[in-house]
Amino acid sequence: MASSRPNIVFMLLDNVGYGDPGCYGGGITRMAPTPRVDGLAAQGLRLTNFNVEAECTPTRAALLTGRMPIRTGCDRVRFGEKNGLAPWEYTLAQLLADVGYDTAIYGKWHLGNVPERHPTAMGFGEWYGIQDSTDPVFDHFNVGKGIRKRSTQIWEGTAGEPAVPVGEYTPEARRLIDAEVTDRACRFIADHAGGDRPFFLYVPFTMIHHPSLPHPDFAGRSGNGDFADSMMEVDHYSGRIIDAVDAAGIGGDTIVVWASDNGPPSHGTLGPQGDPGPFRGCLGTALEGQLRVPCVIRWPGHIEPGRVSDDIVSVLDFYVTFANLTGGRVPTDRAIDSLDIGPLLDGSGPSPREHLIAFVRDTLAAVKWHQYKLHLVEFTTEPGRRYKLELEFPQLYNVAADPKEQWDILGTNLWIAEVAQEIAADFFSTMVEFPNVPAGADAPPGVEPVAT
Amino acid sequence: MASSRPNIVFMLLDNVGYGDPGCYGGGITRMAPTPRVDGLAAQGLRLTNFNVEAECTPTRAALLTGRMPIRTGCDRVRFGEKNGLAPWEYTLAQLLADVGYDTAIYGKWHLGNVPERHPTAMGFGEWYGIQDSTDPVFDHFNVGKGIRKRSTQIWEGTAGEPAVPVGEYTPEARRLIDAEVTDRACRFIADHAGGDRPFFLYVPFTMIHHPSLPHPDFAGRSGNGDFADSMMEVDHYSGRIIDAVDAAGIGGDTIVVWASDNGPPSHGTLGPQGDPGPFRGCLGTALEGQLRVPCVIRWPGHIEPGRVSDDIVSVLDFYVTFANLTGGRVPTDRAIDSLDIGPLLDGSGPSPREHLIAFVRDTLAAVKWHQYKLHLVEFTTEPGRRYKLELEFPQLYNVAADPKEQWDILGTNLWIAEVAQEIAADFFSTMVEFPNVPAGADAPPGVEPVAT
Repeated sequence: MASSRPNIVFMLLDNVGYGDPGCYGGGITRMAPTPRVDGLAAQGLRLTNFNVEAECTPTRAALLTGRMPIRTGCDRVRFGEKNGLAPWEYTLAQLLADVGYDTAIYGKWHLGNVPERHPTAMGFGEWYGIQDSTDPVFDHFNVGKGIRKRSTQIWEGTAGEPAVPVGEYTPEARRLIDAEVTDRACRFIADHAGGDRPFFLYVPFTMIHHPSLPHPDFAGRSGNGDFADSMMEVDHYSGRIIDAVDAAGIGGDTIVVWASDNGPPSHGTLGPQGDPGPFRGCLGTALEGQLRVPCVIRWPGHIEPGRVSDDIVSVLDFYVTFANLTGGRVPTDRAIDSLDIGPLLDGSGPSPREHLIAFVRDTLAAVKWHQYKLHLVEFTTEPGRRYKLELEFPQLYNVAADPKEQWDILGTNLWIAEVAQEIAADFFSTMVEFPNVPAGADAPPGVEPVAT
Repeated sequence: MASSRPNIVFMLLDNVGYGDPGCYGGGITRMAPTPRVDGLAAQGLRLTNFNVEAECTPTRAALLTGRMPIRTGCDRVRFGEKNGLAPWEYTLAQLLADVGYDTAIYGKWHLGNVPERHPTAMGFGEWYGIQDSTDPVFDHFNVGKGIRKRSTQIWEGTAGEPAVPVGEYTPEARRLIDAEVTDRACRFIADHAGGDRPFFLYVPFTMIHHPSLPHPDFAGRSGNGDFADSMMEVDHYSGRIIDAVDAAGIGGDTIVVWASDNGPPSHGTLGPQGDPGPFRGCLGTALEGQLRVPCVIRWPGHIEPGRVSDDIVSVLDFYVTFANLTGGRVPTDRAIDSLDIGPLLDGSGPSPREHLIAFVRDTLAAVKWHQYKLHLVEFTTEPGRRYKLELEFPQLYNVAADPKEQWDILGTNLWIAEVAQEIAADFFSTMVEFPNVPAGADAPPGVEPVAT
């Protein structure tokens, strides 16, 4: 049985927009070709309606728990200690470890910065990377005399022992970290390919998050600046990881996923970074340019090469999908928002997901249902400014006709607003039976934290 | 010699945006799959930086003369008689006819509505279609008692005789016309495939121009409204024309081009229509969402299948390229703005075009040079409103980093503004030797009109 269960290599990019990779319309139009990601898409399934949460931490929490971030206390990027996932959560890594998988994470965690919330306490056997985000690298550019600079570390850890800092996350380290992440990922694949146990390798690259500082080998490569250089660099690393899988002869036994964690950051803050492609919006909004990000899935022999699907899929859905593929146990003592996209992968049916609920932090911002989308609160950005707008009336868009969400069709389609509001009401009703985990708490109210 | 010269089938779409076909990121994401156009791209070259003029008439004039529309009196859609191309112009159809090509146009002309400016007086051997645009179809929906309705005809003609109206362009006719255009195009291909003479078949579909009224066979096909139905319909027609070429056994001897004439129309007027994909803007602006449209070129044995190029190409460039491929004569008594993209087609070199000048009507709006773009006057649209904004300072964008042109980088790149302004000055200086043809005139000032 063990041998029939696939290995899983999950590459998660940071802040890559829907429009950045070549196979999503970016690539050479940005002077940043991405032949390796494009090649992965040609060998597998490319999703054009893959949806994530509004920021980095919520998406990572959704991926690893199959639960809406509002439930897990991970509805936003939080600062200070005891942020991230409660020890009580049953992560995808733990789920897979419990059915015999070897697990590792190389890269960015951003789901907890105290020992009991580090990845090696949450189901991962090995970890190298950063516990929070890449933003603190900016601090090194902005240090005035007597102004405090945070010291941000790169960590290394093994399950059963406290992780230890192994170096400061400086601008120089930022240029090098994804090369090291890639080296370790490739080594892990080579070391585990011949074993009896399947593996789950989670590679949350730190790229392309600002500051996008390329490795010296890639600086200047694109002729179009640091961002484009870094896109070419991380495409190269993605290719090295794919090559490691193929070189080990385990291509047909390995699901390879390449996805992003959220839409591009606001232009206002940073100047041109990632691009949302045909959509509008950036991270921290509920516009399609935030919700939809690239996602490519390769599994030779199981997923037909070169497929493209516009079915609605959420980052939540990997949890139950992978559990069902591996015999893993999906908890029943909590609300699970994940749906099994197995039929979509093997081509036997559509995605089971007909709708999707979009929060921005703790605000229900929008509900998607088929090609329709009801905005209840408008989060928007203009260069230099971010708004949260209360709406006099909800706004309804047909995103398949109007991908930039510019043409409110509520007046002639009121019944769709009713459908969307029922979906939202059903969602909120589940919080009665299963109360949310408050941010920073170790478990839901009244529940004993259980050691993982 | 004749047999070595390729046939040319040029399909020109009306108002299809960069983001509409599947191979440009639309297709299934719009619930309007375009498998035939996508297939053509897979067999040929897909251009991601193909640029057209700001409206319908200027683009068509540029295609057929190789001259900037400001030179030919065709800088905008004009109303009333004697609009369009002066009889003195030497069209691509005439150029090809003069070296032995059989020529035909089935579809929309929009370059003149008096007999001496009809296509059959301008180099085309046969014509079926409309002389102006599809807008008058709207008049049928807006006829109040005593309000004059224009009568717009469908025309048929043969060179050497006056064209004749063969039916009114009603909403019902609008649903059927592209089926008839396709039938005639396929018949022309079948009739001419076995002959001694090469042919130039120009198929300017009336689709997807508003009102997008699908053929009854396609109404409801997409599940996403008239626009999506019509996209599926015109993709089907495009496929029929490709099939006609292949069925006649002349695939390797025939250049097939599929392109659009301008960006999508303003949302303000019409609600969701075409989409500019990762760019911003609509027709009547100089934003990338207007300048860049889909363009796919297939020529088996000469163009490597599946290529994609982001080199700058203009609709102007087909004129000299086709002249050089066929031994046609490029006039020397007038300014020609067309460049030979032969090397780009056969893969022997890049596009020779390093820069591009974008007019909106008679205003120089922007200059593109490599990935940079200087806006001198800002044409912009918001739902329901169109603006022409005089700028205090020019605005400079790096469209490869910032496809939506949101981040002005002039302040730190003043030298690029100088380059752009030199390009513009060089262009204007050519008007001294070769004066522009005034709108409605039969020739440039002081030049005798020559019968074609």
